[in-house]
Amino acid sequence: MQDKPLILITNDDGITAPGLRALIQIMNKIGEVVVVAPSSPQSGMGHAITIDSVLTCNPITIDEGPQLEYTCSGTPADCVKLAVNEILNRKPDLCVSGINHGSNSSINVIYSGTMSAAVEAGIEGIPAIGFSLLDFNWHADFKPAAEAIKKITLNALLNGIPEGIVLNVNIPKLKESELKGIKVCRQANGVWKEDFDKRKNPSGKEYYWLSGAFVNKDKGQDTDVYALETGYISIVPVQFDMTAHHMIQKINTWDL
Amino acid sequence: MQDKPLILITNDDGITAPGLRALIQIMNKIGEVVVVAPSSPQSGMGHAITIDSVLTCNPITIDEGPQLEYTCSGTPADCVKLAVNEILNRKPDLCVSGINHGSNSSINVIYSGTMSAAVEAGIEGIPAIGFSLLDFNWHADFKPAAEAIKKITLNALLNGIPEGIVLNVNIPKLKESELKGIKVCRQANGVWKEDFDKRKNPSGKEYYWLSGAFVNKDKGQDTDVYALETGYISIVPVQFDMTAHHMIQKINTWDL
Repeated sequence: MQDKPLILITNDDGITAPGLRALIQIMNKIGEVVVVAPSSPQSGMGHAITIDSVLTCNPITIDEGPQLEYTCSGTPADCVKLAVNEILNRKPDLCVSGINHGSNSSINVIYSGTMSAAVEAGIEGIPAIGFSLLDFNWHADFKPAAEAIKKITLNALLNGIPEGIVLNVNIPKLKESELKGIKVCRQANGVWKEDFDKRKNPSGKEYYWLSGAFVNKDKGQDTDVYALETGYISIVPVQFDMTAHHMIQKINTWDL
Repeated sequence: MQDKPLILITNDDGITAPGLRALIQIMNKIGEVVVVAPSSPQSGMGHAITIDSVLTCNPITIDEGPQLEYTCSGTPADCVKLAVNEILNRKPDLCVSGINHGSNSSINVIYSGTMSAAVEAGIEGIPAIGFSLLDFNWHADFKPAAEAIKKITLNALLNGIPEGIVLNVNIPKLKESELKGIKVCRQANGVWKEDFDKRKNPSGKEYYWLSGAFVNKDKGQDTDVYALETGYISIVPVQFDMTAHHMIQKINTWDL
């Protein structure tokens, strides 16, 4: 690492999102910052990439500061690929994604554009962290999370994040004085119970809005959901080798 | 399970894709088939879901046969959510996705709409399998794979797929007589090396096409890529708990 680490920042709420702006302020104190973020919100994009259409990526200035910023027409994963291959002139020392407006704990990691950007960086061999605040509000208060985000980031730069792993950090919606600390957790085994809202358009044709409620039946006290509910910031180490290694032997007993 | 299992079929290449039509033919011999597939191709959509826009889902007839079919405006994961919550009147015994036109081995599992549909079914508690043929051609020959797909499906129905796991099946582009068998594997540690194709539009503005080559430095003989290269069909058991459990202890040594 050079004296000042090169930090790539992206998100899934789009380049103007207050959560991203807050993350830039924090990272400007730690390193040399380059932002490559989606032009428009990309929530729920999971690990989508753009293969059937073209991408644009242009310099932009949103707020004052030492950071360089680019706005990209693609998904969060596209932003990371473009940044690493076309925008940056050296491999970043760290990629941070967020701060997401809303939780990415439990199963949400799999739907999350914020986390897919971090995972994409991990695949590219770059240490990466996704940050999310449990507040969907566009005008959420990101200040209480700042010190913890800085601490986690400095630890990641100092200790390194092992290859094949990225960190999923979620922060409860609390005042700074109410935050109890940071816990390393496993992903809670929760799911979304969908509840489609079926409507008719002005011509009488049916359509749906996807809606639902998050249900967590996982009572473990070592989960991210438990940590967040009890006032802690959660860190889940996430791997992108999705193989269920322990199942290989079992399926080998099938008559194939 | 009732006498005839209820099988939900979806894909990411769209409802008219020959790979889907081939999978319907195979599944019609095994169970009662309902198809809920995207209206248009959704390759590279990863685990995207539609939350900022509406969904439509309408009955359609593409070919003759006993199957019921619906075309859905959303992503593969949306199709599964809609099918389970709005279309089907009971929980399916199995969800199969594909047959994808092109490989979903190794890291491709994470970008794959085909596999995200299977994973979404798994999250909903439905046994699920994604099938992919290593041939991107729209007019690929899916016949050589039929017997193996039937065998794997019958095994999954008979033995069950454990909760939290879905199967990722890839089939080499070979004649049936050249297929050597079926191997249960781990996901190879391969990656895409991007090579963006930078162009100028008629007004002189720059844009990019995402392009690249798959690079596998993983020399293990227990990987899906090795199995496929040596003429075998690969099955990787895939889990959607992305926690790197073995890393929790290590990160607990950080100064947090």
